[in-house]
Amino acid sequence: MALPADFKDSYVDLAHSLADAAAVVTRKYFRTTFDVECKSDASPVTIADKQAEVAMREIIERTVPEHGIFGEEHGLKWGSGAGSKYMWVLDPIDGTKSFITGKPLFGTLISLVYEGSPVLGIIDQPITKERWLGVVGRPTTLNGQQLRTRPCPDVGLAYLYATTPHMFSGENEVAFNRLRDSVRIPMYGCDCYAYGLLAAGHADLVVEADLKPYDYMALVPVVQGAGGVMSDWRGRPLVWQPTPGATDLKSGWPGEVCAAGDPNLHKKAIEILAWKH
Amino acid sequence: MALPADFKDSYVDLAHSLADAAAVVTRKYFRTTFDVECKSDASPVTIADKQAEVAMREIIERTVPEHGIFGEEHGLKWGSGAGSKYMWVLDPIDGTKSFITGKPLFGTLISLVYEGSPVLGIIDQPITKERWLGVVGRPTTLNGQQLRTRPCPDVGLAYLYATTPHMFSGENEVAFNRLRDSVRIPMYGCDCYAYGLLAAGHADLVVEADLKPYDYMALVPVVQGAGGVMSDWRGRPLVWQPTPGATDLKSGWPGEVCAAGDPNLHKKAIEILAWKH
Repeated sequence: MALPADFKDSYVDLAHSLADAAAVVTRKYFRTTFDVECKSDASPVTIADKQAEVAMREIIERTVPEHGIFGEEHGLKWGSGAGSKYMWVLDPIDGTKSFITGKPLFGTLISLVYEGSPVLGIIDQPITKERWLGVVGRPTTLNGQQLRTRPCPDVGLAYLYATTPHMFSGENEVAFNRLRDSVRIPMYGCDCYAYGLLAAGHADLVVEADLKPYDYMALVPVVQGAGGVMSDWRGRPLVWQPTPGATDLKSGWPGEVCAAGDPNLHKKAIEILAWKH
Repeated sequence: MALPADFKDSYVDLAHSLADAAAVVTRKYFRTTFDVECKSDASPVTIADKQAEVAMREIIERTVPEHGIFGEEHGLKWGSGAGSKYMWVLDPIDGTKSFITGKPLFGTLISLVYEGSPVLGIIDQPITKERWLGVVGRPTTLNGQQLRTRPCPDVGLAYLYATTPHMFSGENEVAFNRLRDSVRIPMYGCDCYAYGLLAAGHADLVVEADLKPYDYMALVPVVQGAGGVMSDWRGRPLVWQPTPGATDLKSGWPGEVCAAGDPNLHKKAIEILAWKH
């Protein structure tokens, strides 16, 4: 897709200021002692997740109050008028388990979604101070330097990342294991950082399941602006819009994602994931 | 064990200079394009692994030519006379797969082993510039700051790391899975960095298999000097000495390791690993 006609470059500046604000919070709490709560889906959450999202929401509400917001920790706020076509989808700490254990590969994910499609994405790693920026139709950058994915002519040569093998179950596990057994090396433990490595040409595939829109919306423009392809496991675009007026936002979105640096590798990976026995 | 009577503090300075020399090499190649060879055990190796080890060996041979050396890439060199009781056991890049994919959690592992027991260990992460130092009988430090492991009264509360679930097979896989299913959260993808997180009180258990002496000798003083316990899966110390004159160094060492920040947690983890059905 192309950028919407009413997209403003100031939205990019705004996205950077959100990442800056979240980083102040996450750096403050990283490797300190804090309580870890367990959410209803058993995933952990900390005061850093919550405060970082509040910091970002306050800036959005002050700057573009007409835009919608959907954040992992504080839910949905509808936009108004023409502005409601835009929604900021936020994950203050993607990789909370990494954050909790002091591993500097978590990330703050910031995306601007227009009518269900992500048009801007930031992956920010505040400890190593790496920030990936993707905007539809523009080259992806890492700390301002343009990136390109690398070619990978064959699945058997691919370095594959997934956060954990425990994110796959049932048919998903069978499909993932089929792909895992086809690649050169399967690796784990990266969360959003793996997509940054893929965009920078250091890895070839990231395949995950059981994700939510705030886990992947920001990644799509980063991967695609570097020359890669990112879709669901059937090759369809990762689009999602809440039904107007909806209050239950616990399902109904794509949950499986497949990112590849090489578009031909993406096709092959999708074939292997979809393969019927 | 205590430090040997003839241990010199200059060995600590030497260990730092080895880490500095290896870091010059690994930083030079990190996130650049290089060939990846496949070793006979199917593990990858790069020019960075080889050059970093050569840089360290040259310093050892110049400074303490009487000491032995055992490195992952360039094998065994016997020491001479009383000096042969000491052996430097080196892994220039632990986590070569992380290194290859641009993930800054690999580490250079440097250990000084006396009559088979590690008495000094360094974990050096040259990109994030974090260096853990452990010396028997002294407090472990991270960049000069003393560290302590954290208490973890129950296996069900533990954050567990292992590099990858694919390092376990056969009975090891059954035993690991039993422990994995007992902990709060199992996580992957860290290599030696996980032991550094454990020593710093951010994780509770690291349990791995299929390791070689250069993968773990450096970790033991780091973990134990921070208050933790590290052993094989039967609770025995991680000691290993090559048979004098041996040339085939491909087996005969402990391969499974269990590190815990809390000594009581270590006992419980060993019980679960050893549990007979």
